[in-house]
Amino acid sequence: MGIVLNGGTIVTAADVYQADVRIEGESIVAIGYEIKQPGDQVINVDGCFLFPGGIDPHTHFDLPVGDMSTSDDFSSGTEAALMGGTTTILDFATQFKGETLKKGLQNWHLKADGKSFVDYGFHMAITNWNDRIVHEMKEIVQKEGVPSFKFYMAYKNVMQVDDSALLQALRQAGECGALVCVHCENGDVVDNLVQRARIQGHTAPLYHPLTRPPEAEAEATSRVITLAQIADAPLYIVHLTCSGALQAVTNAKLNGLEVYAETCPQYLLLDDSSYRAEGFNGAKYVISPPLRPIQHQEVLWSGLRTGVLDTIATDHCAFNYKGQKDLGLHDFSKIPSGAPGVETRMGLLYTYGVMTGKLTINQFVALTSTNAAKLFGLYPRKGTLAPGSDADIVVWDPRVSSVITVRTLHQQVDYTPFEGYKQIGQATHVFMRGTQVVQDAKLRVQQPTGIYLSRKPFLKRKVGGNDVQS
Amino acid sequence: MGIVLNGGTIVTAADVYQADVRIEGESIVAIGYEIKQPGDQVINVDGCFLFPGGIDPHTHFDLPVGDMSTSDDFSSGTEAALMGGTTTILDFATQFKGETLKKGLQNWHLKADGKSFVDYGFHMAITNWNDRIVHEMKEIVQKEGVPSFKFYMAYKNVMQVDDSALLQALRQAGECGALVCVHCENGDVVDNLVQRARIQGHTAPLYHPLTRPPEAEAEATSRVITLAQIADAPLYIVHLTCSGALQAVTNAKLNGLEVYAETCPQYLLLDDSSYRAEGFNGAKYVISPPLRPIQHQEVLWSGLRTGVLDTIATDHCAFNYKGQKDLGLHDFSKIPSGAPGVETRMGLLYTYGVMTGKLTINQFVALTSTNAAKLFGLYPRKGTLAPGSDADIVVWDPRVSSVITVRTLHQQVDYTPFEGYKQIGQATHVFMRGTQVVQDAKLRVQQPTGIYLSRKPFLKRKVGGNDVQS
Amino acid sequence: MGIVLNGGTIVTAADVYQADVRIEGESIVAIGYEIKQPGDQVINVDGCFLFPGGIDPHTHFDLPVGDMSTSDDFSSGTEAALMGGTTTILDFATQFKGETLKKGLQNWHLKADGKSFVDYGFHMAITNWNDRIVHEMKEIVQKEGVPSFKFYMAYKNVMQVDDSALLQALRQAGECGALVCVHCENGDVVDNLVQRARIQGHTAPLYHPLTRPPEAEAEATSRVITLAQIADAPLYIVHLTCSGALQAVTNAKLNGLEVYAETCPQYLLLDDSSYRAEGFNGAKYVISPPLRPIQHQEVLWSGLRTGVLDTIATDHCAFNYKGQKDLGLHDFSKIPSGAPGVETRMGLLYTYGVMTGKLTINQFVALTSTNAAKLFGLYPRKGTLAPGSDADIVVWDPRVSSVITVRTLHQQVDYTPFEGYKQIGQATHVFMRGTQVVQDAKLRVQQPTGIYLSRKPFLKRKVGGNDVQS
Amino acid sequence: MGIVLNGGTIVTAADVYQADVRIEGESIVAIGYEIKQPGDQVINVDGCFLFPGGIDPHTHFDLPVGDMSTSDDFSSGTEAALMGGTTTILDFATQFKGETLKKGLQNWHLKADGKSFVDYGFHMAITNWNDRIVHEMKEIVQKEGVPSFKFYMAYKNVMQVDDSALLQALRQAGECGALVCVHCENGDVVDNLVQRARIQGHTAPLYHPLTRPPEAEAEATSRVITLAQIADAPLYIVHLTCSGALQAVTNAKLNGLEVYAETCPQYLLLDDSSYRAEGFNGAKYVISPPLRPIQHQEVLWSGLRTGVLDTIATDHCAFNYKGQKDLGLHDFSKIPSGAPGVETRMGLLYTYGVMTGKLTINQFVALTSTNAAKLFGLYPRKGTLAPGSDADIVVWDPRVSSVITVRTLHQQVDYTPFEGYKQIGQATHVFMRGTQVVQDAKLRVQQPTGIYLSRKPFLKRKVGGNDVQS
Repeated sequence: MGIVLNGGTIVTAADVYQADVRIEGESIVAIGYEIKQPGDQVINVDGCFLFPGGIDPHTHFDLPVGDMSTSDDFSSGTEAALMGGTTTILDFATQFKGETLKKGLQNWHLKADGKSFVDYGFHMAITNWNDRIVHEMKEIVQKEGVPSFKFYMAYKNVMQVDDSALLQALRQAGECGALVCVHCENGDVVDNLVQRARIQGHTAPLYHPLTRPPEAEAEATSRVITLAQIADAPLYIVHLTCSGALQAVTNAKLNGLEVYAETCPQYLLLDDSSYRAEGFNGAKYVISPPLRPIQHQEVLWSGLRTGVLDTIATDHCAFNYKGQKDLGLHDFSKIPSGAPGVETRMGLLYTYGVMTGKLTINQFVALTSTNAAKLFGLYPRKGTLAPGSDADIVVWDPRVSSVITVRTLHQQVDYTPFEGYKQIGQATHVFMRGTQVVQDAKLRVQQPTGIYLSRKPFLKRKVGGNDVQS
Repeated sequence: MGIVLNGGTIVTAADVYQADVRIEGESIVAIGYEIKQPGDQVINVDGCFLFPGGIDPHTHFDLPVGDMSTSDDFSSGTEAALMGGTTTILDFATQFKGETLKKGLQNWHLKADGKSFVDYGFHMAITNWNDRIVHEMKEIVQKEGVPSFKFYMAYKNVMQVDDSALLQALRQAGECGALVCVHCENGDVVDNLVQRARIQGHTAPLYHPLTRPPEAEAEATSRVITLAQIADAPLYIVHLTCSGALQAVTNAKLNGLEVYAETCPQYLLLDDSSYRAEGFNGAKYVISPPLRPIQHQEVLWSGLRTGVLDTIATDHCAFNYKGQKDLGLHDFSKIPSGAPGVETRMGLLYTYGVMTGKLTINQFVALTSTNAAKLFGLYPRKGTLAPGSDADIVVWDPRVSSVITVRTLHQQVDYTPFEGYKQIGQATHVFMRGTQVVQDAKLRVQQPTGIYLSRKPFLKRKVGGNDVQS
Repeated sequence: MGIVLNGGTIVTAADVYQADVRIEGESIVAIGYEIKQPGDQVINVDGCFLFPGGIDPHTHFDLPVGDMSTSDDFSSGTEAALMGGTTTILDFATQFKGETLKKGLQNWHLKADGKSFVDYGFHMAITNWNDRIVHEMKEIVQKEGVPSFKFYMAYKNVMQVDDSALLQALRQAGECGALVCVHCENGDVVDNLVQRARIQGHTAPLYHPLTRPPEAEAEATSRVITLAQIADAPLYIVHLTCSGALQAVTNAKLNGLEVYAETCPQYLLLDDSSYRAEGFNGAKYVISPPLRPIQHQEVLWSGLRTGVLDTIATDHCAFNYKGQKDLGLHDFSKIPSGAPGVETRMGLLYTYGVMTGKLTINQFVALTSTNAAKLFGLYPRKGTLAPGSDADIVVWDPRVSSVITVRTLHQQVDYTPFEGYKQIGQATHVFMRGTQVVQDAKLRVQQPTGIYLSRKPFLKRKVGGNDVQS
Repeated sequence: MGIVLNGGTIVTAADVYQADVRIEGESIVAIGYEIKQPGDQVINVDGCFLFPGGIDPHTHFDLPVGDMSTSDDFSSGTEAALMGGTTTILDFATQFKGETLKKGLQNWHLKADGKSFVDYGFHMAITNWNDRIVHEMKEIVQKEGVPSFKFYMAYKNVMQVDDSALLQALRQAGECGALVCVHCENGDVVDNLVQRARIQGHTAPLYHPLTRPPEAEAEATSRVITLAQIADAPLYIVHLTCSGALQAVTNAKLNGLEVYAETCPQYLLLDDSSYRAEGFNGAKYVISPPLRPIQHQEVLWSGLRTGVLDTIATDHCAFNYKGQKDLGLHDFSKIPSGAPGVETRMGLLYTYGVMTGKLTINQFVALTSTNAAKLFGLYPRKGTLAPGSDADIVVWDPRVSSVITVRTLHQQVDYTPFEGYKQIGQATHVFMRGTQVVQDAKLRVQQPTGIYLSRKPFLKRKVGGNDVQS
């Protein structure tokens, strides 16, 4: 009646040990030796690691941008996620101008419900601040299971909110059990530099990074940390890319502030030399924030190793090179910003983090799954391998190696920034809530089975005092 | 035939969840639901936490100091440890002047073997450096199961070694799989200040901290980190007490050096105002490094929270107030340096760390057990609750509260620095390698059952490169 | 025909030595021994220091604020300046909403011309940014002798400019030989906190500092430094008050950025406990940024000593306690912000800086005169005692001591924040362009003789390269 | 009867202005216009800068090292100094093993008296510490006019002193008006690395820098700063070369410690690639500390610009390449350590500091003359151009440019590390105590006229308090 995974090595954010795992229904029910019950199916996973299913806390599926939408919708995007070992994603339900939060959320349910191959939740992205929203935030947290909000300090006149809105939002979030996620780039600076570059006649993709310098990100990161400190609220920095921003987060943590931060594989493995790719190919790397000079990479790895960075997401936001990216052929500022990554996240981190010795295998699990589960109200249901948790299990075979290429990926986009990258290990089998959905690296289900995850509120760290309550 | 602990909440360095634990022989064999086998004894632990048995990586039992010895030997000291929830200790086998390392180690086996109520291992303290020792170190690691060495930068003309010896030792340790542990205080400075204070006629315990300023510790900490960097060797700082030293370790970690650090409950909870206690009572707090001004406490808690500090030890080194400490009644420099703490460590950390919100309960487990197991070659046998690990389990009842007093402690010393401190929670039951040795907070065994732990070599972090080996 | 000051000790930003000074016309013509010419008048200044006339680079005389104006106009304000040893002031000519810069400047000439007892120049404060102004800036620098512009990051909806405007202004200033001066407080944060405090019913002066926290200043300081870095422009931070902002400037200087900063005596000598003064007396200290917790004082003194801070100004902006400050009796946000100080600057700095050993007497001269002259295009005409310089000379008698009280000050305002402060030394005689305008601490002229100073453009530091031009 | 220098531009540490200088006897007596007296000789210096005579606070003339001596004695060395624009040097009188300080000082008087072309003073280098010396130090300061002592943290078993000696010396110096100068390299580390390299068979000059890594200097610098802090004594770091050491000094200054530091032209302009020079030529650059990787250069320039570094010395310690350096042909550790530089200091700093825009011309004067005069008890007699000061004047013609080559230098050594370096400007005329000793870049005196300078005690900065003494 149950399933026993036999002979694997279990890896959690703290432990590594060999044991069997018994699944019953949607959950793990036992870990150990001689736990098989009569009637159980036994699956041999000798020589494999068992990881908690990956959680990607930053995707953009079916996102409308101007007149188009991202090329991956919830169906193709989550299939790709699954094949790469990710069993949960958090997408950004976006309130657009004039909408209530509720309306934005409904829109996203329409996009996702019934179409997702992995379990999913939503962050609520707020782009049009007004006083009424303060009150709606509370309802979104308590009734809709969405305890995280996103704000943009960039995209002037489009999604950017001012410091006053941010301060109010942070204060309200801190009070109603939510975590504020922020895209940190100074939109005024970026806008000014972009306009100036255009006036000067610059059109090439190379001007994308030149008009979004690391200083603009570091500044915004420092600023929003100050706002969070004043609001006494927790804070989560999305897609941190550069040493200045990392320094700001390091200082915040050392000073006892509750600040968390995320980075992405592209910032760890690629650099701004990509914008000099032949012809218009640099457009494939037009993402925001942009890729940075190569020296930032080691700094980010160090941030992961020391725990300054908490999670690794993808910011998967796919546009086809042909037909979408090329809208900016004569104006770099018209290139839709974003790139795919949801499928390659786990493999790249394992290969270039664990196998190089930069991260321990426990850190790999913490960064790709456990920490996101804890920060975003999914733990212990998601994020670990333990009795009682959802049986979201990645059977990772470290003996397989391959080369990443767009030809074999499951995403619906015509390129990958990691074309030609070697990958060690593979998500050979994947279990989602007790069901084997990937077998021998092949999708085994016909229909999407992912469900919406109503998440728990965020618990602020209790303020440390010396007094002990009786 | 087995034992099932039923209904408790399991806590590891990463996870918290409710499940049963099944023990067979000396080990944990399963964790989960419905894992009871016919014939198993079931022990109900409803409402209790199950922690991995505590590991105290810094004790001094039966240590000769001048004409006397510490009041706790391995028998009384480890009984105290056990009653406090600590099931493994690491003591410092000391090579004294003229001895080989082997001889020093034999001496400690004589003290400990057959007398310890908890499992134990040794660090090898080297106080008399010479060229021959470089070679002996390798043997001690490989044949004696002792992959850690301790050096003193303090105690001039007694145990202090110079930078040249430290550099050689670090290099050799790095090459033969050992971790060098260092007592960081500038012995020249301390010696000079002590002599000066004595010449000026100062005799009171208050002159102990005044002659061992935080700067002398910060300086030595920075210095040995530089030596470790030059030697390309890992390093472990024992009993770190002050912000300057913490800053040095923080910088080292951020710069990618493999530096670890330990602090102790006394530095987190007591301060140098204790030296102004009435009469000669200040002598009870004469420990080295000394207690610091109170502002250092928050800095250390912050170091624990951010992962800059890795472990919490006790530096248990007990001398009776009457008959031992009072040797220094007329000369503070003659007060034997040290204080007890092995029994109160877990309770104090739980009470003043977890219950105040300064630490998560996972951090509590990491700091009191898991990290020490990993650093000192005991993991995964010790340091976690997982199938295959030794069944060293502390059943911690958080509903009990008490007041710490020397009258009820099991140590063999006539005071505790924590007299009158409230404690929340208690090690109600303790299992050691599958045997229940504490029941209802009472010792349940007549004879010591602790065994010597031959430890695995230390694995240096692989140097992170960008190349991935096929 | 000349004047010889005989027997004084000359102090410059670098030197101290005893010598005579010979004045002819408006200038110093010789310094040395036996330099008297036939017909010269000899004035004995035995035992006195000769300082370059003080330069206060930050005053607000005759400033309209809402329906009122500051109580000191150019006549009373500059008389006060002169009596305190300051012979040059720089006031902020302000462009108000809808005005051209030229118009703002004309307005200030009308206020000042013919009414000033000291020489004066203007900074141009820009409060209403638009694209046309970029072009006007150049003209103001080149034709009007105003090579410095001021912007406010605070005062939302009134004078605050956004980051885009700042960035453009910095870039333009960098190109046309001007220095941008910035009031650094995050206006969004301040506005939000003020509105919130009012909604919560808080009315007392104490809420002034609580709604303008140091973090809001530190944040804005860091931000504008980033903007200056991106614009490759020099920057001058006005009235820096807190450790966070000082840290930002320190880092900027160490990183090679051309960032300068000013503080004021009130931030060095007063603290936020003043806001708890009896009754409504706290209103006297309502200035922006506000007084800070006392621990910031030592940090600022350290900034002066190490050269991180370049100048000491007053931000003299006087409102009577009765009739002006009391407009905010029932609403702290309505208290006009500002306090007097132009007369007490030199005496306070000498007394609490030089006499306490915190500053050398050379640093005193650099901070009160020379550095401002160099930064603001007045050197070597002003700011030093050297042949060829204007004979602006303060004869400072260090043997006199007094107590500061509003009853004997020459300002036109009914209180001083420094009431009761002891002062050592006095500007016994003051010479301005060769004329003795103060004799025995009494004003000796009937009519204002100050002239408008057309200033030289700011010279950016040549970017250091390794190449040497032939 | 006097001399008037007519038409030059006077430069001090703070000022630049055009004026005449009148000299009478050994002193400057007036600066200004129309100061000529009947009978004065007028020398036209149109278009030239007038600098205070250079002060080189760190030379080693006639220093015995093993069986040889430096190639420059006081005669040749000071002639070279003079021709380069340096009119005062401070040499290190060294107490060797078994000598009293008095004896060491006498030895140096024998070497220098009557042979020096420039004025000179001595620092007292103490290499053999014992308790008696503490008392002798006071006498050396008070009776011999030597208020500065030097200690070595390097050169194990030769000149190295331990931390205890340093601490005692610092304390005593602080009390008796002396400044302790320290050579900061961890001698234990260096000795260990050198022995190891030799055992491994390395002989080339390249192993000189590899066995004296920057970390060993940074560590020692931090350490001695801590010792100075504990001793409450001022400190002067000689020949600082690397970013780690600069960081330590920066922190010390920001923390209010009285720590000063010196660097040398070779560390600003040369780098460790020189050790890879063809054949044995790398030996020419064997100095201690060694040249560093090139990235340290910009950090040092930044230290000069921000005032973290106070002086520029040469550490002139000349050995001929042929006959001296080649003693180490087969063992890098036998190469005598040192290089010439006293003649090229002013020209290099002017060319690569002032002309590149890295330093202002005022900073040039402060760094090459004024600061050393103030720190070492020579000010205002030396170090500035002011009435009453010694007429030590360098007439610097900025229109001359040349190329540095050993063929035209006046030093007595067969190479210069700066061979082929371009120099802008020249010490066309030099006056020493009123006498023109260099005319048109040619020595104009036959006999040495330098005199011994008995220096004033060092005045510790008054500890800043808030109280003002009446």
